[in-house]
Amino acid sequence: MDKTETGQLSRRRLLLAGGATALATAVPGVAALPRSQVPAWDEQVDVLVAGSGAGGTCAALEARRAGASVLLLESLTMPGGSSALSGGVVYAGGGTALQRALKVTDTPEAMFNFLLRAGSPNQPRDKIQLYCEQSPEHFAWLVAQGVAYTEKLTLAKGLPMGDESLYFSGNEQAWPARDLAQPAPRGHVPGVSGMNGGRALMEVLHRQLGSAGVRPRTGVAVKQLVLESDGRVSGAVVETSAGRQYLGARRGVVLACGGFIHNRRMLAQHAPQLARCAVPWGGAGDQGEGINMGIAAGAASLRMNEGFAVAPVYPPENSIAAILINASGQRFISEDSYHAVIGHAIAYEQQGKAWLITDQGSSYQGVQDNFPLAATSNNIGGLAEHLALPRGALQNTVAYYNRYASKGEDPMFRKSPEYLRPLQGPPYKAWNIAVDKAFFPAHTLGGLATDLDGAVINSFGETIPGLYAVGRTAAGIPSAPYIASGLSLGDATFFGRRAGQAVAGRR
Amino acid sequence: MDKTETGQLSRRRLLLAGGATALATAVPGVAALPRSQVPAWDEQVDVLVAGSGAGGTCAALEARRAGASVLLLESLTMPGGSSALSGGVVYAGGGTALQRALKVTDTPEAMFNFLLRAGSPNQPRDKIQLYCEQSPEHFAWLVAQGVAYTEKLTLAKGLPMGDESLYFSGNEQAWPARDLAQPAPRGHVPGVSGMNGGRALMEVLHRQLGSAGVRPRTGVAVKQLVLESDGRVSGAVVETSAGRQYLGARRGVVLACGGFIHNRRMLAQHAPQLARCAVPWGGAGDQGEGINMGIAAGAASLRMNEGFAVAPVYPPENSIAAILINASGQRFISEDSYHAVIGHAIAYEQQGKAWLITDQGSSYQGVQDNFPLAATSNNIGGLAEHLALPRGALQNTVAYYNRYASKGEDPMFRKSPEYLRPLQGPPYKAWNIAVDKAFFPAHTLGGLATDLDGAVINSFGETIPGLYAVGRTAAGIPSAPYIASGLSLGDATFFGRRAGQAVAGRR
Repeated sequence: MDKTETGQLSRRRLLLAGGATALATAVPGVAALPRSQVPAWDEQVDVLVAGSGAGGTCAALEARRAGASVLLLESLTMPGGSSALSGGVVYAGGGTALQRALKVTDTPEAMFNFLLRAGSPNQPRDKIQLYCEQSPEHFAWLVAQGVAYTEKLTLAKGLPMGDESLYFSGNEQAWPARDLAQPAPRGHVPGVSGMNGGRALMEVLHRQLGSAGVRPRTGVAVKQLVLESDGRVSGAVVETSAGRQYLGARRGVVLACGGFIHNRRMLAQHAPQLARCAVPWGGAGDQGEGINMGIAAGAASLRMNEGFAVAPVYPPENSIAAILINASGQRFISEDSYHAVIGHAIAYEQQGKAWLITDQGSSYQGVQDNFPLAATSNNIGGLAEHLALPRGALQNTVAYYNRYASKGEDPMFRKSPEYLRPLQGPPYKAWNIAVDKAFFPAHTLGGLATDLDGAVINSFGETIPGLYAVGRTAAGIPSAPYIASGLSLGDATFFGRRAGQAVAGRR
Repeated sequence: MDKTETGQLSRRRLLLAGGATALATAVPGVAALPRSQVPAWDEQVDVLVAGSGAGGTCAALEARRAGASVLLLESLTMPGGSSALSGGVVYAGGGTALQRALKVTDTPEAMFNFLLRAGSPNQPRDKIQLYCEQSPEHFAWLVAQGVAYTEKLTLAKGLPMGDESLYFSGNEQAWPARDLAQPAPRGHVPGVSGMNGGRALMEVLHRQLGSAGVRPRTGVAVKQLVLESDGRVSGAVVETSAGRQYLGARRGVVLACGGFIHNRRMLAQHAPQLARCAVPWGGAGDQGEGINMGIAAGAASLRMNEGFAVAPVYPPENSIAAILINASGQRFISEDSYHAVIGHAIAYEQQGKAWLITDQGSSYQGVQDNFPLAATSNNIGGLAEHLALPRGALQNTVAYYNRYASKGEDPMFRKSPEYLRPLQGPPYKAWNIAVDKAFFPAHTLGGLATDLDGAVINSFGETIPGLYAVGRTAAGIPSAPYIASGLSLGDATFFGRRAGQAVAGRR
């Protein structure tokens, strides 16, 4: 049995176990190093940025442009973080240049209403409002950096596999979201085909970084913050292949180390619903170290239980004509919801269990590897028996659903008419969409509490001088349910820029 | 709009706004006071305990008995905390003296299996195991202090209003819990009638404390921890009617300040589901100050989103023959579940909305003030229309339920046969059990990460020297769903004792 909930032998201790004497003599329990125990700075700059994903890169770029000397550190051998592995979608709206070029009507108010009303009850209202108000400007900034978007819109569901740059990337058109705010396509994705948008976006940002004279230093892991006696963060202890170094940061440290989806112990403690998901979804750097360093320096953390969990029900779109059921054999959500909204409902509200029930016309051929086939039958009762559902429940659910669907109605979840028809025509199939059985990607959304400038805040609402956090190291705009692709990258780039300006003293 | 998520103008700042110069000169961002800024200790003892509820009182008592000098501080004018306002139930088992006297069969394994399997996926397994193993001894300790229990068992649901001292205080007999572990009555409550068990328990503990020479000092609020340069907690800044004082603690500080159900800002940030509940349930001291002081000193916090939320569906027991439905007109849980398990399902999984549908035989007369009457009708369709439920859904639910209930079966949620019969016989009534419309008590369960001795842990798994937390200031055994009455007081008294021994150096 473990002695402590958070573990006697932490990963950090293991990593530092063979280290130099300076840390060995550090007093146990001081997870942040007192400045008095730093022998000397090996190097000193104005701004130290830990992590080279979208948040860290934008922070470094803007800090440098504001005149600060900047060191951008990356623990892995390749820069780019989870951002470079992503689809590259930025959720933007309120009348961006691309929306206007494509004759899409949108306002900051509609965008704000969607995010606030269709999302969770504990969202950061102030951050969302600022983000919506400045969204057209932020998109223009991305374009100015050189990110290439095509003037093409698609109405198909899911990340465009062609070169379209604008699409409905979220839950805008599903009920009840569509009644809460005027829907608009707000997923802005670089005009490259396939899942290469994130790489394209990060290549552009790193090119700008290089032009500004900042080159990410890879293979350097930030392990511990250095605190002055007055509580100010003034540097960090890092580990490199050459050993430990003490790096001073005159103006501050920006933690941009990603989330903690690959730290199993943190996941089990903070977000057990995500720990059960089959596919930890993020770069190898998402170990929670940035969050843990901030907490050890006195930071508050927020929404640590929340995450992004995806049930990839579509594509193909014809599967949306199927129905989703829970372990009671009942429907629980509209099948045309954004797949992270469906994923949230399964992971957080249905104990991780669900099945997709298809008929001949909605069958899942083509991408069957997303979900294991659980049962096939020529009738609904046969399926229910295979799944060991409560007796009579699935038959009752399908009869009720079909009765109204045959009239073009879905009184319970108001699925859009284009996907609505009765289940009819065997073979009927049940696909297992349990979080631990299906292809069910998940990552974390909780992180350090920050203000609108990315400054890290303690539990009394005071900023910790010299400490900033961005991207998924911070508790930002994305909260659970995650209601649209592009919110995380949008938050990382937008608040990354602001943190860079703030730490450099421009703001 | 607020500038920060955690608030520019914190409660603490307001409270301290008129304060003396020592704090005014403290560097902003240093939420814990460096020892160098303490002018002099006004008083110094071995152990400082903040909070006089069950956890703080047991810690103070055991620390004193271990030879330490102890100061027990209480911010309010009356000692006892939320514990004194509670029912006084301690969840104990594994073969306590009272269980044995009443010929109740129980084992630590059965108790452990119930708590671990019927509860949430992120429980502290090590704490639960220790608690179950030592439960008979802990109960014997309570008896030895003078807590009076009667040798009387009741099988009725709910806190005994007579003088019975043993009852089924949790979800043991409801499905699926009853299939996961051998049920046993484990709610141990002082043998006094009415809701007076908590007062009886605390009177006994405070009497022992007095005999040991410790008198709670009331009206003294602990506002800030004092940190040595090596990170050790060595005292606290307190506020009294006479002004600010600096109190030194040679061996350590025990934070026993309760949870944060009365801090609306913290609730909205960390546990929005609880913020919506109609009845904040706890003593006036539950302001989150202990948790916030710990976080500011570098502590990790756990399960901050979790809580205890109660839908008091019973008494009367005959209402259990009714059915509970969600906003889709579907059943979602067995109606004979423990009412905090039902409350959790409503608050966390059903967006806060539910109705109890009664018929003539299950009607809610007697305690109708718990829930507002939402609709009355002579038929189910009429009720559904009043509630604006999805067309046909409630009729479908009731038809399915009645079909099986008439055969004595509940295939969906396996309600116990004693409560199972078809709904029949108007008038049908719908009672609103929404979290914000009904009498829906709630309190928080999240708190500081601690080890088995109550020592506070940072985000790297290291203890913070000199800092302990107990009761609802710590993340202890109770997690959500809260599956039995008495877990919180049991945790507070048991780990309170251990923390007292540990801080005094006995362990």
